[in-house]
Amino acid sequence: MEQEFASRLLENAVQALAQLPGIGRKTALRLALHLLKQPQDEVLAQCDAIARMRREINYCRVCHNISETEVCPICSSPSRDRSVVCVVENVKDVMSIENTHQHHGLYHVLGGVISPMEGIGPQDIEIDSLEQRVAQGDIREVILALSPTMEGDTTNFYIYRRLAPYNNVNITVLARGVSVGNDLEYTDELTLARSIAGRTPFTQTLHRE
Amino acid sequence: MEQEFASRLLENAVQALAQLPGIGRKTALRLALHLLKQPQDEVLAQCDAIARMRREINYCRVCHNISETEVCPICSSPSRDRSVVCVVENVKDVMSIENTHQHHGLYHVLGGVISPMEGIGPQDIEIDSLEQRVAQGDIREVILALSPTMEGDTTNFYIYRRLAPYNNVNITVLARGVSVGNDLEYTDELTLARSIAGRTPFTQTLHRE
Repeated sequence: MEQEFASRLLENAVQALAQLPGIGRKTALRLALHLLKQPQDEVLAQCDAIARMRREINYCRVCHNISETEVCPICSSPSRDRSVVCVVENVKDVMSIENTHQHHGLYHVLGGVISPMEGIGPQDIEIDSLEQRVAQGDIREVILALSPTMEGDTTNFYIYRRLAPYNNVNITVLARGVSVGNDLEYTDELTLARSIAGRTPFTQTLHRE
Repeated sequence: MEQEFASRLLENAVQALAQLPGIGRKTALRLALHLLKQPQDEVLAQCDAIARMRREINYCRVCHNISETEVCPICSSPSRDRSVVCVVENVKDVMSIENTHQHHGLYHVLGGVISPMEGIGPQDIEIDSLEQRVAQGDIREVILALSPTMEGDTTNFYIYRRLAPYNNVNITVLARGVSVGNDLEYTDELTLARSIAGRTPFTQTLHRE
């Protein structure tokens, strides 16, 4: 049942908040009434931060990561290894991998994975532009860092096939195995099986940080 | 673990969204990335709606309901019965009661209920101003429409005691009984007991809409 609000301004604000994913009309009203009780300066600063983000952030022309400039700081950094490109599904994955400090190359953000169930095909994500980058000849390694799901695997395989003509490019994929810190008892059998099949020499683990 | 974001603008927007109650940093990031994908016009209009609400809505000087004017439309309406005041906990309750179209009098928004557990005493909510309104002598009935909880009952009783000196004022309380449309099987025993104790002549129910 929709409530009628006394104030059109409140109604508009509730509608604006209800546009956010996962926030219904009832929660939106609760949020709006909460904001009314907060200091005016703070609320206006919050609105401004969101508006500025939307106005000034765009997507990098090269890797499709978010960027305040036409080419993002990673793509234009002279200290990154331009011969290695890590392919990820979305912007959040770039942040996660950056936080590991283990990847010193560039990125390529697909903006999704191939999912016939959701009607997302190869042409709906940034695979053509990936191939164009590879075709330029500077890239030696493409790291496929998609989620180990059916859609991720499908996309990996599709990219692998698309890039197969480029003989000078190594295509690698994230190691699959038991999670660090997880009890073996709680690891699913498929992961366990893959981690046995993909076992690594113990001495190799000693040289890692 | 806090993530470092490549963009300060994104960081600021995530912080702004994370100020909303019930929204953590992870959800805030998800919302921010969602907003980045929405059309810029829409996002800016949403921000503006929220900013305008905060800038232009205040609280009615008389009843403490939200209002775009110093005295709210209900308090200043010539068609409302100024001799009946309905006491509610918050602004949402005013909306709920307005939607029933059963109350034609004015309101008084307490802004909370007495709750010793949360350190909210009578002086923290708008009880003094309620007494002042009653003291002016125009009010014949005060309807206590607080939640049927321990805090609501405590507040009801406190207001009843405070208004006792004003002999010309009837103090009434919302009827308690079984909810309309609810199966009797699922009604709690206390409510059922009260609905038996407070049973009404059947003929009286026939005259209601």
